[in-house]
Amino acid sequence: MIVVKIGGSLNGNFRNVCADIKRLYDMGKKVVVVHGGGEATNELSRRLGIEVEKVISPSGIESRRTTKEVLEVFVMACAGKINRFLVAELQSLGVQAIGLSGADGRVVEAERKVIKAVTPEGKIRLIRDDYSGKIRSINATFLNQLLDMGFVPVVAPVAFSSEGELLNVDGDTLASKIALCLKSEDLIILSDVPGLLRDLRDPESLIEDVFPDMEAEILRVAKGRMKKKVMALFEAVRGGVERGIIASGYNDSPIISALQGKGTIFRGRSECNFEPDGVGREVWKWRISQSALEAG
Amino acid sequence: MIVVKIGGSLNGNFRNVCADIKRLYDMGKKVVVVHGGGEATNELSRRLGIEVEKVISPSGIESRRTTKEVLEVFVMACAGKINRFLVAELQSLGVQAIGLSGADGRVVEAERKVIKAVTPEGKIRLIRDDYSGKIRSINATFLNQLLDMGFVPVVAPVAFSSEGELLNVDGDTLASKIALCLKSEDLIILSDVPGLLRDLRDPESLIEDVFPDMEAEILRVAKGRMKKKVMALFEAVRGGVERGIIASGYNDSPIISALQGKGTIFRGRSECNFEPDGVGREVWKWRISQSALEAG
Repeated sequence: MIVVKIGGSLNGNFRNVCADIKRLYDMGKKVVVVHGGGEATNELSRRLGIEVEKVISPSGIESRRTTKEVLEVFVMACAGKINRFLVAELQSLGVQAIGLSGADGRVVEAERKVIKAVTPEGKIRLIRDDYSGKIRSINATFLNQLLDMGFVPVVAPVAFSSEGELLNVDGDTLASKIALCLKSEDLIILSDVPGLLRDLRDPESLIEDVFPDMEAEILRVAKGRMKKKVMALFEAVRGGVERGIIASGYNDSPIISALQGKGTIFRGRSECNFEPDGVGREVWKWRISQSALEAG
Repeated sequence: MIVVKIGGSLNGNFRNVCADIKRLYDMGKKVVVVHGGGEATNELSRRLGIEVEKVISPSGIESRRTTKEVLEVFVMACAGKINRFLVAELQSLGVQAIGLSGADGRVVEAERKVIKAVTPEGKIRLIRDDYSGKIRSINATFLNQLLDMGFVPVVAPVAFSSEGELLNVDGDTLASKIALCLKSEDLIILSDVPGLLRDLRDPESLIEDVFPDMEAEILRVAKGRMKKKVMALFEAVRGGVERGIIASGYNDSPIISALQGKGTIFRGRSECNFEPDGVGREVWKWRISQSALEAG
């Protein structure tokens, strides 16, 4: 099984990604697609004259404030336009796709976040009426039913809350949790960068392999949005996903080439083994490679 | 089984409709929901400053011209906003709903229409690049699978074309064809009118019962959008649906009261019986009631 996250930064350039999904689908692979939608939301907000407020977290990550009005735009742009046209593009290639938001079969449930934002004066402000959520559950049974029926689920980063609301959730985190729950072998995050770069200005500085013991170092290297991707991939491989890959969605064959090693590969289960230790504990043992030791 | 069409004219006032769906769902009834979206599309178009052209058919029915730009708005407003929030509202009541556009599992396929429009000069103009469609197929197997899994499918009037495009289709016709294919007992079309009125200005002129032999007369009575509903209901009852009901969605309990007889009821299968006639023909025999004879 493969979980593919298609970044909003691809701006609808889904042709090559969809062609690769078709190839995997024809090979009998189970594929789950998760997509983004931030860019489409920003664009539709702009066209509607809705000002989108940015909030900055204490750790410096910038995100979009999701008011009720912005949520509606997010649902239309992301779970409406991107999701529906992506499903149509896959179906036009002969892939039996089905588009889902979190409320469909309660596939993704989340709790509303209390957002910590730093004010221009450097104070911390708590925002309680935001429509963004922290993922609480994934309905793996339902996704597995769809996969067994031959479907490719295409999941929008819109979750359902215990209060019956729709909430905006992070697409990378969603893809990671889905991969984890479905015990997927691979998780591929496609965006507009070739992978994780040590130096953003130098494409030659691509980090090819990331081993479990490199977490602290890698989290220092990753900046901004990339930090979220890195954290999502660490969570996935820690939970049993064999490989988490950050790769460019702009290649001719973005998924296949990522599977062949193009991008930054986070190594997981295949690099470690799991055994009960005889005193009731579950112990994961990492096989640490030479390159991992060299990488510090 | 019950198929319920929720008209766009309800403008998001879905609370009572959803509460009734919950009641039927708890009684173990299979329910399929089809919704409209014309009003939401017009509103979003207006907010985006997109001028929506109206076309008038030779038979005098006005409809919206669906350019590529309008299709995108239609998908966002209808398959995005209405569909996703309707599913969330049902889920918040504990109804296991799943939202679908026609491309999901290729549940609704259509062919692009060539639209005949009357010009202001009274000439007929053929429009070939419109993104509206005529329904070609319904994937009843997929809908039945979902129903057997305990789902309430919520279907947007967005179809998938053989060219891989999304197309705008008529919601009433879609509901009728779904009811027919699933051999539903009841088809209820809810909108902002109490039923079919002989005189639009007189709510007392409600036609309570429509029998199969009243088609010509009823089609003369129905004007504008109501003509589409009437044609859709005749198609449904002709094909085996027992009752087709036009009723108000603004009642406290709109579906239950429609099933109890509030509205205009088109009588079908229960009023007739079907038998092979011994020479290989399928013969439908109508029991014609006294009131039908009196109604002319």
